[in-house]
Amino acid sequence: MQALVWDGRELRFDPSHPPPSSKAQMEDGGPRIEGAPASRSALPRAVVKVHLAGICSTDLQIFKGYMGFKGVPGHEFVGSVSEGPRQLAGKRVVGEINFGCGECDYCRRDLTRHCPNRTVMGILNADGAFAEYVSVPVDNIHVVPESVPDEEAVFTEPLAAALEILTQIQLDPGDEVLVLGDGKLGNLCAQALRLSGAKITALGKHADKLALIKRAGVRTIQLNDWKPRLFDVVVEATGSSTGLELALSALRPRGTLILKSTIAGNHQVSLAPVVINEIHIIGSRCGPFADALAALEARQVSVTPLIEATYSLNDGLAAVDHAAHPGARKILLSAIQD
Amino acid sequence: MQALVWDGRELRFDPSHPPPSSKAQMEDGGPRIEGAPASRSALPRAVVKVHLAGICSTDLQIFKGYMGFKGVPGHEFVGSVSEGPRQLAGKRVVGEINFGCGECDYCRRDLTRHCPNRTVMGILNADGAFAEYVSVPVDNIHVVPESVPDEEAVFTEPLAAALEILTQIQLDPGDEVLVLGDGKLGNLCAQALRLSGAKITALGKHADKLALIKRAGVRTIQLNDWKPRLFDVVVEATGSSTGLELALSALRPRGTLILKSTIAGNHQVSLAPVVINEIHIIGSRCGPFADALAALEARQVSVTPLIEATYSLNDGLAAVDHAAHPGARKILLSAIQD
Repeated sequence: MQALVWDGRELRFDPSHPPPSSKAQMEDGGPRIEGAPASRSALPRAVVKVHLAGICSTDLQIFKGYMGFKGVPGHEFVGSVSEGPRQLAGKRVVGEINFGCGECDYCRRDLTRHCPNRTVMGILNADGAFAEYVSVPVDNIHVVPESVPDEEAVFTEPLAAALEILTQIQLDPGDEVLVLGDGKLGNLCAQALRLSGAKITALGKHADKLALIKRAGVRTIQLNDWKPRLFDVVVEATGSSTGLELALSALRPRGTLILKSTIAGNHQVSLAPVVINEIHIIGSRCGPFADALAALEARQVSVTPLIEATYSLNDGLAAVDHAAHPGARKILLSAIQD
Repeated sequence: MQALVWDGRELRFDPSHPPPSSKAQMEDGGPRIEGAPASRSALPRAVVKVHLAGICSTDLQIFKGYMGFKGVPGHEFVGSVSEGPRQLAGKRVVGEINFGCGECDYCRRDLTRHCPNRTVMGILNADGAFAEYVSVPVDNIHVVPESVPDEEAVFTEPLAAALEILTQIQLDPGDEVLVLGDGKLGNLCAQALRLSGAKITALGKHADKLALIKRAGVRTIQLNDWKPRLFDVVVEATGSSTGLELALSALRPRGTLILKSTIAGNHQVSLAPVVINEIHIIGSRCGPFADALAALEARQVSVTPLIEATYSLNDGLAAVDHAAHPGARKILLSAIQD
């Protein structure tokens, strides 16, 4: 099958990559990547024919060496089940990206995404979705409602990550929330938090990106016009190491900082304000797919304006180049052969 | 009156410093320090004759320029009321160190210690307790139970700061808690958290200091013998900028890090593990005096082994030198004249 493959140094298009098989996955304990340990997950799998896959900032970080990943990247996708249990056959689906061992305390407590033995699709010891087919544990699969088109469903993973915040903190209608960053993550976080009824303000550098957020019904401020004031909650979604200091300066005493972006390098920051103002900092990663699909089905969020371009899989290298342009919105890969 | 005075460059002993007066405080709105803005607190005050005052690491930071403070330092004390409301006359008391404006939202919600207009005894625009007398808002005063001697009551402020953690998180008996740091703060945090029934482990560098913590009934490990494992809660009380990385490495996914020590400089640290493991970080500062006095009265904590030496106030400069020795335990100042 066609796939993009990252060998640790170079991304290349492979027109005849070995396809995954649900049977092999179960026997082998997960997709095997040369030089990487075998996945420890032996849970039942399905093979999904990928319709669309999204290129995420994390993918771009991987191409800089993040996580030391090797194999097929890609963890945002929508597709249809081509092999697996009968009740899923042919269904249009999305899939959660953390593949747990199914046996540890975390997996038993439904916290698979924190399983210490997990593999992560396209990120850690498991092949991902920049391919015609991807193998996913059956338990990770969610069927996409009919009214949600592929172009929206492909945003399920990042939207779920944004909605994770609402599972971590209680937001009340009067609460003042600042979302720092006007990129894709900031956009989805602002839209997700708006569902709580709290007063959301998005702060960013780019007029065009802020306009997109404003179109979704969120108040926006451009950094040049920023007059410091204090918020109950600040979401750090800039993806830059300088966002943290601004975030801390915009929090009231006992306020909450949600750390959403993973920065590859070190932060250099004084944490004295965290102690003095008794700030809560909450790290936030992957989130509930069911909530994301429900929000898409109910048309509570608007994701397609975030799409900048769709490339076919065999133009995948150009697609990744495009995604790496500063200011690029979401680049999709279409894996369906004409 | 006798007092130690910090002028921003030098600490000196002043045998005839102007004494505070409860009346003047009310009229002037707080003790006036040359070059510093007047306190905005106009709450009723009492004057307390200081019996004992403790030298804290924060005082040593102040003598390096922390907070730009000028005036009489000192915020850990026990004394007796010499001027103030009749019901307090002659009572043995301790005093909370944050002096609120009494009018803002925080003061109204009983969160005076986060009042944006506050002064802080010996730290921010308010004279402190390294003197024969100190002025304290009446609302900040707590009467010391008769059975608690001065040598224990002088630990009320740092013990309250340690107990603050128990007001911020729920600890259950099965929880595994690691306290990082074997200094005075680490010692008091370990003892305070032990009251929750959780399993406390203290990790430090110094055999003698760890022995003190062990004597108080807490399990201890010396850093040389440390075998990394994961805890539900880690308390960072090392006072060093390197403690944070070790703290993060010892937390289970979704664990809680309590940041207790204020570091003057910057942290240089990767916060990616905070996001990936969805860690909660909670800054923790001043705490409930009533709880601290109750713990001392019930003999639930042991503080006098932490005392290294007591100096008379007119030997205050030598006392501060002693307190700055690496590894020094608590140095007290006795302000009572023979």
